[in-house]
Amino acid sequence: MSEQIGVLVEADPGPGILHKLTGVIAGHGANITSVDIVDERQTYFEIDLTNEAVAVIEDLSNLPIVRRVTQVKTFQTIFGKRIIIIGGGGAQVGQVAIGAISEADRHNIRGEHISVDTIPLVGEQPLADAVRAVPRLPRARALVLAGSLMGGAIETAVREVRVAGLLVISLNMAGSVPEAADLVVTDPVQAGVMAVMAVADTASFTVERLKRRLF
Amino acid sequence: MSEQIGVLVEADPGPGILHKLTGVIAGHGANITSVDIVDERQTYFEIDLTNEAVAVIEDLSNLPIVRRVTQVKTFQTIFGKRIIIIGGGGAQVGQVAIGAISEADRHNIRGEHISVDTIPLVGEQPLADAVRAVPRLPRARALVLAGSLMGGAIETAVREVRVAGLLVISLNMAGSVPEAADLVVTDPVQAGVMAVMAVADTASFTVERLKRRLF
Repeated sequence: MSEQIGVLVEADPGPGILHKLTGVIAGHGANITSVDIVDERQTYFEIDLTNEAVAVIEDLSNLPIVRRVTQVKTFQTIFGKRIIIIGGGGAQVGQVAIGAISEADRHNIRGEHISVDTIPLVGEQPLADAVRAVPRLPRARALVLAGSLMGGAIETAVREVRVAGLLVISLNMAGSVPEAADLVVTDPVQAGVMAVMAVADTASFTVERLKRRLF
Repeated sequence: MSEQIGVLVEADPGPGILHKLTGVIAGHGANITSVDIVDERQTYFEIDLTNEAVAVIEDLSNLPIVRRVTQVKTFQTIFGKRIIIIGGGGAQVGQVAIGAISEADRHNIRGEHISVDTIPLVGEQPLADAVRAVPRLPRARALVLAGSLMGGAIETAVREVRVAGLLVISLNMAGSVPEAADLVVTDPVQAGVMAVMAVADTASFTVERLKRRLF
């Protein structure tokens, strides 16, 4: 049986720290599922363990460069699944956020862990870059595109990230992005609500089972 | 002169991958500033380099376990600084988000990179855990607490994260959290706007120079 733990390691700054720390973890046959370099002195790991957490923590503490090792709660148990809202228009991103946050609240009360992350941007290329970066974001499950006109490079990026397994919801807008999305929603508040429903285990809603894809 | 690059490495899954990859990067004397384990086959690095990016990429590609190495845009250049909104009440988190997203849009148009991330939660301990996790989130610069009653363990967590250098803005609410925050704002939309102004280089606003801390 495996256990997932969060570990915060404080160490002296210098080259190759991560290589030394991961060597200790690999030595225990443990699987690192997440890493964050908090700053040059602090590194945060999420680790799947089959043996005792205390042994890994002790071996990390025994490295000469390590000052302190603390076991902490994992991001998965705190922030959980992420809905990412990207726009094209702060007003529209904000309205999608309102819907998503209210709906996430309803599910989180029942034990889900869903957070809602947003960025307002301008221009075709920055938007395409942001879309393409979403599958690299830890715990990202669905993307909502909020704007009035999106196409070209953004459409290409949407098709790419869908292949990578990301659910993409688009507002009903001008341009070719709605054609490329899994689901098209006219009301921005509803688009946010639907994005959360689609990723929540506490909701009985799946995009695949919808009879139409434009609302 | 150093250069920061983003690198996406696709490799065969298995124990010790991260140890092998970081060994190659450390061998080039390069500094890893960010890592994300996208899934068991993909790892994303942000690296500060003093020598040629092409040499590191080539050496990573030459590892027997590595299938493909792609240079990509960094998260810092795409999503930038993060404002984190945590509540206590989906309606209140949503209103703070409205203010923060609209204001981030205004600054991002002028070249800033600010994103707004939120999570609605319930209960003293989950909220305290979430507050305590914020300094471990990459690129997090300010925290806004949105709710009607917060105190106890949440107050303790707020004092801890402020020591870690995080700016904390609280809505004007019941409980002891407002006393512990850097700034207390009554209107949730304004709280969101002020959080963004405080971290934007394109704004001439600093919390330290305010003559009062309750608005």
